[in-house]
Amino acid sequence: MTSRLKTNQLWRDRAVRVIPGGMYGHQNTRLMPDAYPQFFAKAKGCHLWDVDGNEYIDLMSSYGPIILGHQHAGVDAAAREQLSRGDCMNGPAPVMVELAELLVERVQHADWAMFQKNGTDATTLSVSIARQATGKRKIMLATGAYHGAAPWCTPLNAGTVEEDRVHLINYRYNDLASVDQAVAEAGDDLAAILVSAFKHDAFVELELPSRDFASHLRQICDRKGAVLILDDVRAGFRLTEGASWERLDIQPDLSAWSKAIANGYPLAAVLGSDSLMRSARSIFSTGSFWFAASAMAAAMATIQAIRSEAIIERMQELGEIFRQGIAEQARSHGVAISQSGPVQMPLVLFDDDTGRQKERGNCWTSAAMHSGLYLHPWHNMFFNGAHQRDDIERALEITDSAFKVVADQFS
Amino acid sequence: MTSRLKTNQLWRDRAVRVIPGGMYGHQNTRLMPDAYPQFFAKAKGCHLWDVDGNEYIDLMSSYGPIILGHQHAGVDAAAREQLSRGDCMNGPAPVMVELAELLVERVQHADWAMFQKNGTDATTLSVSIARQATGKRKIMLATGAYHGAAPWCTPLNAGTVEEDRVHLINYRYNDLASVDQAVAEAGDDLAAILVSAFKHDAFVELELPSRDFASHLRQICDRKGAVLILDDVRAGFRLTEGASWERLDIQPDLSAWSKAIANGYPLAAVLGSDSLMRSARSIFSTGSFWFAASAMAAAMATIQAIRSEAIIERMQELGEIFRQGIAEQARSHGVAISQSGPVQMPLVLFDDDTGRQKERGNCWTSAAMHSGLYLHPWHNMFFNGAHQRDDIERALEITDSAFKVVADQFS
Repeated sequence: MTSRLKTNQLWRDRAVRVIPGGMYGHQNTRLMPDAYPQFFAKAKGCHLWDVDGNEYIDLMSSYGPIILGHQHAGVDAAAREQLSRGDCMNGPAPVMVELAELLVERVQHADWAMFQKNGTDATTLSVSIARQATGKRKIMLATGAYHGAAPWCTPLNAGTVEEDRVHLINYRYNDLASVDQAVAEAGDDLAAILVSAFKHDAFVELELPSRDFASHLRQICDRKGAVLILDDVRAGFRLTEGASWERLDIQPDLSAWSKAIANGYPLAAVLGSDSLMRSARSIFSTGSFWFAASAMAAAMATIQAIRSEAIIERMQELGEIFRQGIAEQARSHGVAISQSGPVQMPLVLFDDDTGRQKERGNCWTSAAMHSGLYLHPWHNMFFNGAHQRDDIERALEITDSAFKVVADQFS
Repeated sequence: MTSRLKTNQLWRDRAVRVIPGGMYGHQNTRLMPDAYPQFFAKAKGCHLWDVDGNEYIDLMSSYGPIILGHQHAGVDAAAREQLSRGDCMNGPAPVMVELAELLVERVQHADWAMFQKNGTDATTLSVSIARQATGKRKIMLATGAYHGAAPWCTPLNAGTVEEDRVHLINYRYNDLASVDQAVAEAGDDLAAILVSAFKHDAFVELELPSRDFASHLRQICDRKGAVLILDDVRAGFRLTEGASWERLDIQPDLSAWSKAIANGYPLAAVLGSDSLMRSARSIFSTGSFWFAASAMAAAMATIQAIRSEAIIERMQELGEIFRQGIAEQARSHGVAISQSGPVQMPLVLFDDDTGRQKERGNCWTSAAMHSGLYLHPWHNMFFNGAHQRDDIERALEITDSAFKVVADQFS
């Protein structure tokens, strides 16, 4: 460990004694290069500081929750104002109704909303509603897609039993033949097709949904009386102000949301169409903090700011500049890369890296970390509304030097 | 609806259009008497105000999360201070390690901690860890016990499939013969016994665990190599400063926590013994907001205040006064009631009410609501550290009048 991360190492040493593996989950840096600190002291706008005081331009945005930038003044003010009146009470505050109304107004397919705390809560509830509505059991979902960390969907099987997945049927994203095969397998028992806004599996190239794929899923659900569930947990409100498939003119019956809807305050939501309201009502769905008002006040302010501050357009503009800059730099250094995903949720992979061994990716991102830019070697990154042109220009200076390190090391 | 709840009714009318059933989950007042408002404007100490400005002495404490009182100054200051540095970042803040250390210090059986957002997350992860550690599948749990709202444990079957519960085996709380029968049924496939700190099923009398029952479960787990999971989500830190069964000298292998550990800020935890650390590490367990620092800072302040402000002793003292007062009042009004549960988590049931029809209970609690006391007719209530002797004396004046209403109406 470099001396740059000395304090971080002290915290790691303490953590490993009282936290399994020293850390767990998606923020565990065990699979990341050594240059990545595990612990952070501060975050503001699009900058963050680790516990050693190293400053980074942040291109991960907390793996998605931060869409306006850390400590957005309007969002924090709304949350604090609600906190100063009441947060977790014996019933919800009116802001719960206002937020449901706002989401119904912004998201085309939505006629109602239910709120939770985790993206996994939202995908799990969506599946339950689909099963209740159809009286059927089979759920189609894409091979390798991440829909949460509950036993039925966790990417690792540890701790699960076979029955957790017995009614899941896989298809391949964007592959119509594989979809038809899965539908045939489901027979008369198809409850839902669950699909991510785009293919954003870790380690491999991102893929936008083809128009044919999206409309094929919609047609199958219509024909079979199944429910189309759009998992918009990761992409929701980063691609468009409504559900991500509105850009394709495809409306899901249910959509699952979390991550960016409250700019880092803990909240998730299921949005649904009228025809599913009755089924949604019959599910017993609850949590101790699901009615807490401050995260809902934060969500109101976040969703309003996404429009009033034209956040999506700004992320797209800067994302485009970043993508073009990266492409030119890679060419000029003679390094073969692929860039995939929407420009505001980009992934950069190195052609000569194979499988999960990201030697060049690790080298490139490590060099960037040493110069104050937080990139990710194998997970899509996230722009946020606090990025300014200056930040992206500085980021591109850093990536240029980092490409030189890769070119030197792997020539 | 009475004119007392006019604004509440306006919010209900809006809610029913955009929220399934107008509300869902445990804070849905559909099963409550008409006197109960659905929406709240404010909460402070042990008082809360509905959207019509009606003030109540709160004996529900948000169904458990509020243990120090609403808007506890020390907790809110700690959370805000952390928020002003960073909350949901690319990795946790050091406070995550400090909180794990504090919990390990306070809870006897605990050698490590993992954090989540919902009580359901904690019980679900506990089951996964037990299965991973034992390589076995069967989970014993008490008939009627509430362990969360995921498909495997939700009290309503709507939206679930048979396989969600195929490896669950029921026993009856405090019934050793039924436990033995369940163990026999599990055969060589017993992964865990899941048990609540006490029997706190809704609608029926609460029951503390007998010493024999608790030690029987411990012995079975030792003999069969199974994991004893204590569900302390509801009772944790209200009965004692450690895990609730420390009072019985029985140590679980895993304990699940949420509710009161951060005084209303959203947090849950699984605490475990050394022997399970390796298995815990192998589960992929994560959520977008699970590493957020402000709720952890709130938990540090909450757990410290529970000790420094002698919260448990104070809740017990006032709970005792309330229980004695209620008993005397019922006697003097000639109304037959039962009081059950720990005094700081009491339930009052009326002997002549049958099943889930709580006519007398509804009458009594409705009368109290009209006079500014928030009781619950069929769910255990919760004292918190902000209750003062004055509040409980005022509460007892109200319950006395309410008993008179019951006596008059049902004589």
